[in-house]
Amino acid sequence: MKIAIIGAGSSYTPELLEKLGEMREELPVADISLMDADERRLAIVGGFCERYAARLDLPVRFDKTRELPQALHGADFVVSQIRVGGNEARINDEKIPLSFGLVGQETTGAGGFMKALRTVPAMLEIARAVEKHCPDAWIVNYANPTGIVAEAVGKHSRAKIAGLCAGGFCARGWTSLALNVDRDSVRYDIAGLNHMNFSYGINVRGKELTPEQFRAVAAYRGEQDTELCVELGALPSPYLQYYFHTAERVRELRQKKLCRAEQVLLAEKEAYRDFADPACDTKPAALAKRGGGGYSDIALGFVSAVCNDRDSWIVANVPNRGTIGWLPDDAVIETACVANAAGLRPLSIAPVPMAVRGLISAVKNYEQLAVEAAVAGSAGLAELALLAHPLVADWDIVKQMLPKLIDANRQWLQNFHVH
Amino acid sequence: MKIAIIGAGSSYTPELLEKLGEMREELPVADISLMDADERRLAIVGGFCERYAARLDLPVRFDKTRELPQALHGADFVVSQIRVGGNEARINDEKIPLSFGLVGQETTGAGGFMKALRTVPAMLEIARAVEKHCPDAWIVNYANPTGIVAEAVGKHSRAKIAGLCAGGFCARGWTSLALNVDRDSVRYDIAGLNHMNFSYGINVRGKELTPEQFRAVAAYRGEQDTELCVELGALPSPYLQYYFHTAERVRELRQKKLCRAEQVLLAEKEAYRDFADPACDTKPAALAKRGGGGYSDIALGFVSAVCNDRDSWIVANVPNRGTIGWLPDDAVIETACVANAAGLRPLSIAPVPMAVRGLISAVKNYEQLAVEAAVAGSAGLAELALLAHPLVADWDIVKQMLPKLIDANRQWLQNFHVH
Amino acid sequence: MKIAIIGAGSSYTPELLEKLGEMREELPVADISLMDADERRLAIVGGFCERYAARLDLPVRFDKTRELPQALHGADFVVSQIRVGGNEARINDEKIPLSFGLVGQETTGAGGFMKALRTVPAMLEIARAVEKHCPDAWIVNYANPTGIVAEAVGKHSRAKIAGLCAGGFCARGWTSLALNVDRDSVRYDIAGLNHMNFSYGINVRGKELTPEQFRAVAAYRGEQDTELCVELGALPSPYLQYYFHTAERVRELRQKKLCRAEQVLLAEKEAYRDFADPACDTKPAALAKRGGGGYSDIALGFVSAVCNDRDSWIVANVPNRGTIGWLPDDAVIETACVANAAGLRPLSIAPVPMAVRGLISAVKNYEQLAVEAAVAGSAGLAELALLAHPLVADWDIVKQMLPKLIDANRQWLQNFHVH
Amino acid sequence: MKIAIIGAGSSYTPELLEKLGEMREELPVADISLMDADERRLAIVGGFCERYAARLDLPVRFDKTRELPQALHGADFVVSQIRVGGNEARINDEKIPLSFGLVGQETTGAGGFMKALRTVPAMLEIARAVEKHCPDAWIVNYANPTGIVAEAVGKHSRAKIAGLCAGGFCARGWTSLALNVDRDSVRYDIAGLNHMNFSYGINVRGKELTPEQFRAVAAYRGEQDTELCVELGALPSPYLQYYFHTAERVRELRQKKLCRAEQVLLAEKEAYRDFADPACDTKPAALAKRGGGGYSDIALGFVSAVCNDRDSWIVANVPNRGTIGWLPDDAVIETACVANAAGLRPLSIAPVPMAVRGLISAVKNYEQLAVEAAVAGSAGLAELALLAHPLVADWDIVKQMLPKLIDANRQWLQNFHVH
Repeated sequence: MKIAIIGAGSSYTPELLEKLGEMREELPVADISLMDADERRLAIVGGFCERYAARLDLPVRFDKTRELPQALHGADFVVSQIRVGGNEARINDEKIPLSFGLVGQETTGAGGFMKALRTVPAMLEIARAVEKHCPDAWIVNYANPTGIVAEAVGKHSRAKIAGLCAGGFCARGWTSLALNVDRDSVRYDIAGLNHMNFSYGINVRGKELTPEQFRAVAAYRGEQDTELCVELGALPSPYLQYYFHTAERVRELRQKKLCRAEQVLLAEKEAYRDFADPACDTKPAALAKRGGGGYSDIALGFVSAVCNDRDSWIVANVPNRGTIGWLPDDAVIETACVANAAGLRPLSIAPVPMAVRGLISAVKNYEQLAVEAAVAGSAGLAELALLAHPLVADWDIVKQMLPKLIDANRQWLQNFHVH
Repeated sequence: MKIAIIGAGSSYTPELLEKLGEMREELPVADISLMDADERRLAIVGGFCERYAARLDLPVRFDKTRELPQALHGADFVVSQIRVGGNEARINDEKIPLSFGLVGQETTGAGGFMKALRTVPAMLEIARAVEKHCPDAWIVNYANPTGIVAEAVGKHSRAKIAGLCAGGFCARGWTSLALNVDRDSVRYDIAGLNHMNFSYGINVRGKELTPEQFRAVAAYRGEQDTELCVELGALPSPYLQYYFHTAERVRELRQKKLCRAEQVLLAEKEAYRDFADPACDTKPAALAKRGGGGYSDIALGFVSAVCNDRDSWIVANVPNRGTIGWLPDDAVIETACVANAAGLRPLSIAPVPMAVRGLISAVKNYEQLAVEAAVAGSAGLAELALLAHPLVADWDIVKQMLPKLIDANRQWLQNFHVH
Repeated sequence: MKIAIIGAGSSYTPELLEKLGEMREELPVADISLMDADERRLAIVGGFCERYAARLDLPVRFDKTRELPQALHGADFVVSQIRVGGNEARINDEKIPLSFGLVGQETTGAGGFMKALRTVPAMLEIARAVEKHCPDAWIVNYANPTGIVAEAVGKHSRAKIAGLCAGGFCARGWTSLALNVDRDSVRYDIAGLNHMNFSYGINVRGKELTPEQFRAVAAYRGEQDTELCVELGALPSPYLQYYFHTAERVRELRQKKLCRAEQVLLAEKEAYRDFADPACDTKPAALAKRGGGGYSDIALGFVSAVCNDRDSWIVANVPNRGTIGWLPDDAVIETACVANAAGLRPLSIAPVPMAVRGLISAVKNYEQLAVEAAVAGSAGLAELALLAHPLVADWDIVKQMLPKLIDANRQWLQNFHVH
Repeated sequence: MKIAIIGAGSSYTPELLEKLGEMREELPVADISLMDADERRLAIVGGFCERYAARLDLPVRFDKTRELPQALHGADFVVSQIRVGGNEARINDEKIPLSFGLVGQETTGAGGFMKALRTVPAMLEIARAVEKHCPDAWIVNYANPTGIVAEAVGKHSRAKIAGLCAGGFCARGWTSLALNVDRDSVRYDIAGLNHMNFSYGINVRGKELTPEQFRAVAAYRGEQDTELCVELGALPSPYLQYYFHTAERVRELRQKKLCRAEQVLLAEKEAYRDFADPACDTKPAALAKRGGGGYSDIALGFVSAVCNDRDSWIVANVPNRGTIGWLPDDAVIETACVANAAGLRPLSIAPVPMAVRGLISAVKNYEQLAVEAAVAGSAGLAELALLAHPLVADWDIVKQMLPKLIDANRQWLQNFHVH
């Protein structure tokens, strides 16, 4: 079995190796192709991987390349963790919206939209290369915004894509920790979109939570939103804070000396210094400052369900096809699926809690416009996408902010044209 | 034929008489019952109506009453133009949201929500009286928010209700004036909700507008939004300004010395002084300052279509029943219908312009929660309704603002309980 | 205004003239183009039309042609009444299915399927000529099976088509005659397909029938099915006899000496003898033996609603687009519409009576397969279409009967290929 | 863990024991309650079970009872295999329809309808007892018609029910045997109803069959229908023979000396003679003549998935809830699900093959009417149900046959009233 890692220069790559070490029995990977457009990062992380694998006693061959065809040739799984423009571009994603009084965040709001515009064309290029070089392979995608990426790839290529995110498993974590039960015994209905989901109907080994248990889990999720969760009858994704506490979050973000992207850049610098040290063969401590953990569990959990053809409950971003009756069939949603060798199948769900249906519809509408804008490279569609986004929504702001956002991203939006 | 006017003390009543004068051939009304809870206004407007009818040479018998059963007995149509709390209550609807930086407006946003909470129980009382005293009569409703009222009455009584608003005919006016064509030759698809609609597929005698004609009509609607209309492919209701230019509208509203309710109160004072003058038998000039014109055309146009069983194209608020596939069947929408003796039937429409679907879904979600909150008198549902409203949406603001709104409306929310 | 009549050699043409005479005020037609592929019939009927118009004092110019482009040039309406293969082909449509113990009927069952295979390609040829020569014109279609034809033309051309049939107005006739009320005061919900419709929610000037009135109307429709109508809560089209009394109808059809096509051929012979008589300038008595009356009322009623832009309640075959939630959006259904200059718009309907939903779904499924089979000229799809038809449904019969049907129609199925 | 077996006097009970023996590790059952209304059969089969369990060395306590409350008390699973009226009643189900030239079969057509009328009230009685005595237990139902039973119980009680049938796994068997692959590696989309399903999109370890492989599997299923399967793009349930080869099946059934029920009665006689023999402690050979094998695999496979909370692909009869967009949400369908401690969740499916949609809709329509008729005990609804059934469909036959069917079943239809 061969895995190709695209964007392998990322500091997330070592986590994958670590997990492969733990799963070596069920996932006997022989070859890993490390592909990255950034030669320096590829060399550093690639070198570290070889030392780390040796230390883990993991019998795997590495191949380092900057070329997609070489990376994809013979691959069974293509793990994508690309970040077009790096954390440098992310600084603009956070700061420009904030300068208009809007949420500035990596995946949510106008910042997430710019990330989508940069990422979608790059992912479509990968998908088309997959169609050509390894058409039976699964793209295991973690590049954000993963829901938008999955919808774009699903609509515009024949490549198979699993849009994954650790966020779909939050309710599992909260419940198991709050109630001291086994993680895998927790299941639920989950409806919505990536970073915009709502978990409900939570059960432990098939027994639905009592109201008291639900309150305890909600409190564990976050004291201040306990009552909100109880009224909604659902546990929102942590990212819902940007929707439900917009004013406060904007106030806080504005007060920070360093934005999140700047903090991450500092942590990355530290991590890459360690990676580059020829003596270093264990995960650097600085990685803990990065967030995003749990990623390798989900990604390789999916890979294992497919390889071993084992029915597995998993939350993923997949085409709706009737799961949520009031969203389009071709809309990608984040929901519980069963994964096995045949891929991902969404499970039917109980009705979505009443009070969040409009919000989900509105954000999905934005996402579908964002996919169209990114694929067509159209500024007109970009305006409509931002207008449709509940966290932007103001035409006057759209008209002033969009040119600034496009200017700041000019180098990554080569197909983009102003109408 | 008998018409009962509920809220007859309103300054809109004379307009109805004037229109009945014009339509006397096709609408031979013998009896008009004027009903109002406010004895003083009823006496003043009632007196004026008698003089005005005499001047119009309209052979109609008037009955003035404060009792619903008396007003409804034998009625064929029940015109409702009630305003619970009057324009005094409206001052709070406008000012309290504004104090939180939100749009404060009669029918849109948190202000409209409070109007809904006051109006829905009163309208349900009327509907139940109609069921009892004149079950075959149509309620012709103008009491705002007319879409929410129509949904509440439709779900919670068997009375027939036509939720009307002149706003559904805006695109007719804009097109006929911009292109110098006959008003009645203009038809279109119209989708959305009351004060939240979008007109598209506009045609004149069946010929769809050219792009140039559409641009001309959009420019007539409002210079500054021409481009927005062209990109949307639709003409939004004027009330969409509160969604698409939120920041600017809030800024302007805050700068006004008098809010709209205060201005209307001044104009009303003037009008009622004239109405009360025993020598006055023509419409006072002050009425022009009130807005809301065109109301009697639509209301009596519907009445005539029913009475004369004449198929007539009309925009109204009716249960969705599949017209917009992604909204619930029981959701009241504002759309083009055919009216005749059998009532109102929505016409099938072309797909709703892509970029406004999420917004319509979100506001409809709010409206359905508002209906539930108003009927149940539940503060918990009221919180969820406001959270679901795109112009509120912030839980911290909801928690602070709702108690203030409820306090200010305490006297009209007798069934309301804080959970 | 110019009307082109395609298949003008039909004996139905004079009826159109007669009706145009009655409607001359509202429908001032200047030119009529008579087009037919059959030179002899065209000469005979064309000659008669000139004499008949003279007698009616109808100031209209006639043009006789065998060429579509000439007929369509400048046309505002294109009335189609073609019958590919004539009544001769119809003999096979009736007799071959009957020889397998199946209903043999012009529009229902396997016979109707063969008529569809012959007619769809011819109508698509007309539609493509309309696109080219008079793209704004309406095709007013009476060629059967009109629902299948309307679906094929709607899916495979951009020409506008109104699929009409007098059968949609049956419930109007039954009600007005049974209750002695004005025809135009009767309206109803009507759901289903052409020759497969169900009328319900019948009202007179907006007042729904009482149970006693409904029973009286059902009895008027046909004594023997009164109870069935009452249980269904709907009045089926007379053609439903072939579904609900299959065995008896097959028995009767088998006992007839002459099949319907043979009877019609005899009546036609008589009529054409009269048409050919240079002294004849009134409708021959033999026409009464043909059936299909009322056709010109509906066709010219639609033409007038469009020309005069007058909202008119009309039953027609139109794309479903959500009217019946459980049928595909692109399925043509027969339902109540409003016609005006903008064309035909289906009206929303009350839920279809429970007990006929499956039958409608099944026949619509057949119709959609029939459209595909006819357009693709595919014997494989033809087998599936017949298998899906509730009146055929048996694979063994399909495999034996279809080759016989195709052989008998070989000359009109030039594009048809056996896979 | 306790299992209650309702209808335990059935000759299927020993199979359950045998399977429990094989699964003793994963399914440690301590108590089995054997309940049957027929004292004699209960004594005979109960006695045999004790001997058989001893021989299997299965440490389980048996309780024999004729009372539901005693059987259900403390039960975790309630396996229902009741047969109201026994195979004696089934003789009428087969012979009466046949005398009208219709398919006479246990679960399909008019015979299946009578079985539904007898079984639904009995199953509702069980379900209500479950609500009371063991509300957390699952009813594992094999009583036919299992889809209709599951819909009736789901709509009219709060008891949890899994409507199972070995027929959903046919495509697994055909594929594994035709292609010599492991049974569990075969998955597919399956759409339709019990005994009316279609399997498609068949894959082996996630790899879809090639056309050649599909043809081979279809040929294995049954030589004569290979081409039909290829054209449909699906493998129909074996019971579809009654729909696709109706005439031939009716002919064959008429020629048989003994109908199926009579054959089964003979085999049962033999089996019960063996069961009653105090020396007999292994499954009698006569059981092989009964059919219905594989039942215990599915039933206990489900029980194990729930008990052990292990995600398992399983075909079951469950409420549709959007899985098939054109069927009602509350319609029970037979489709692939994942089972685990939280119960059964249908998996989203690819579009149902075009040519069978109408047939599925029609039979589902019949089934929903059958549920209503059985619950209401209404002869009027029974008439509509039979009229809606594609294998009956003729009103004249319905009117003659239904009284005969009701008469023959009078003793089991105590709540049934003729309107």
